[in-house]
Amino acid sequence: MYEGAVQDLIDELGRLPGVGPKSAQRIAFHLLASDAADVRRLTDALTQVKERVRFCEVCGNVSEDDLCRVCRDPRRDVSVICVVEEPKDVVAIERTREFRGRYHVLGGAINPIESVGPDDLRIKELLSRLADGSVTEVILATDPNVEGEATATYLSRLMGPMGLRVTRLASGLPVGGDLEYADEVTLGRAFEGRRVVGA
Amino acid sequence: MYEGAVQDLIDELGRLPGVGPKSAQRIAFHLLASDAADVRRLTDALTQVKERVRFCEVCGNVSEDDLCRVCRDPRRDVSVICVVEEPKDVVAIERTREFRGRYHVLGGAINPIESVGPDDLRIKELLSRLADGSVTEVILATDPNVEGEATATYLSRLMGPMGLRVTRLASGLPVGGDLEYADEVTLGRAFEGRRVVGA
Repeated sequence: MYEGAVQDLIDELGRLPGVGPKSAQRIAFHLLASDAADVRRLTDALTQVKERVRFCEVCGNVSEDDLCRVCRDPRRDVSVICVVEEPKDVVAIERTREFRGRYHVLGGAINPIESVGPDDLRIKELLSRLADGSVTEVILATDPNVEGEATATYLSRLMGPMGLRVTRLASGLPVGGDLEYADEVTLGRAFEGRRVVGA
Repeated sequence: MYEGAVQDLIDELGRLPGVGPKSAQRIAFHLLASDAADVRRLTDALTQVKERVRFCEVCGNVSEDDLCRVCRDPRRDVSVICVVEEPKDVVAIERTREFRGRYHVLGGAINPIESVGPDDLRIKELLSRLADGSVTEVILATDPNVEGEATATYLSRLMGPMGLRVTRLASGLPVGGDLEYADEVTLGRAFEGRRVVGA
């Protein structure tokens, strides 16, 4: 509907996840009205990300070096590996400051509908990290949904015979939430995983 | 939370209208996983838009030439001008194929809260287009909200003494909608603007 360059930009923006035609138009006109320097900063950031960012050779997290920040850090505990689906999960866990081990990023979860099988994930790389026996615990921190659970189950069966401690993050009520708003599955899990309190 | 380039991109994307921190992160990782050629197409579109797109010297619509597509078109009726707030309104009206005149894009609406006054809009340019007497009707198609109504009222008073036909788009029930879901103001306007039907 627009002339050349404006329409091209709207089309390109509309290909981004979560950006519909209306948002694409809104962003395009925002950029059209912005200073050239602002738009330049955005294009530079885009170019830089493709030029500089790659994936950590050990854990698969995003990195600007061969090894990511966590794998480079000598203070991190090498005996525990936390397995996650995506780099953004690493960030979410780092934010808690609860975990001092290392990560392994699978690059997704087993999802037959989207034809993502075990071979499409970084599972071989995970097993080779476990080969030398220095890792004693693997925490399965895949998403608490169907695909994440399936992936965790698959991995726990695979690692069963290895004599490792294999754990899964607890499911239960979100802290700060209202019990009455919890869905049945979550509430069911909270019962299952109930703990003894007091002495 | 992320290393350099990824965080820079998330920050830049987060400055775009309607893109929150979570969407910015999602888009950044989408781009990280995309082909370099796809990202290149996006950066090219951004660069092109700033290099090639400017505003029509006559109507203020976006254009890649001195005159926009509508102002260049000799088949358009020069005696009617439709006044709109933004270029995207031109696109919305063009889509109806109802209007064969020309446009005038104000670049916004009078909004005292955001300190946008009449001098910040392309009103002087509109008046100079009316000076030679070739225009006989001005259709005020600013948004049907407080700012748009105020702008239309301001313009209609300004043009009152000029002997022009000044009209405003009809307010009423959206076609295809449900009467019971219309807000009171819209329903009130629909009553006010009711028309005689039948012979």
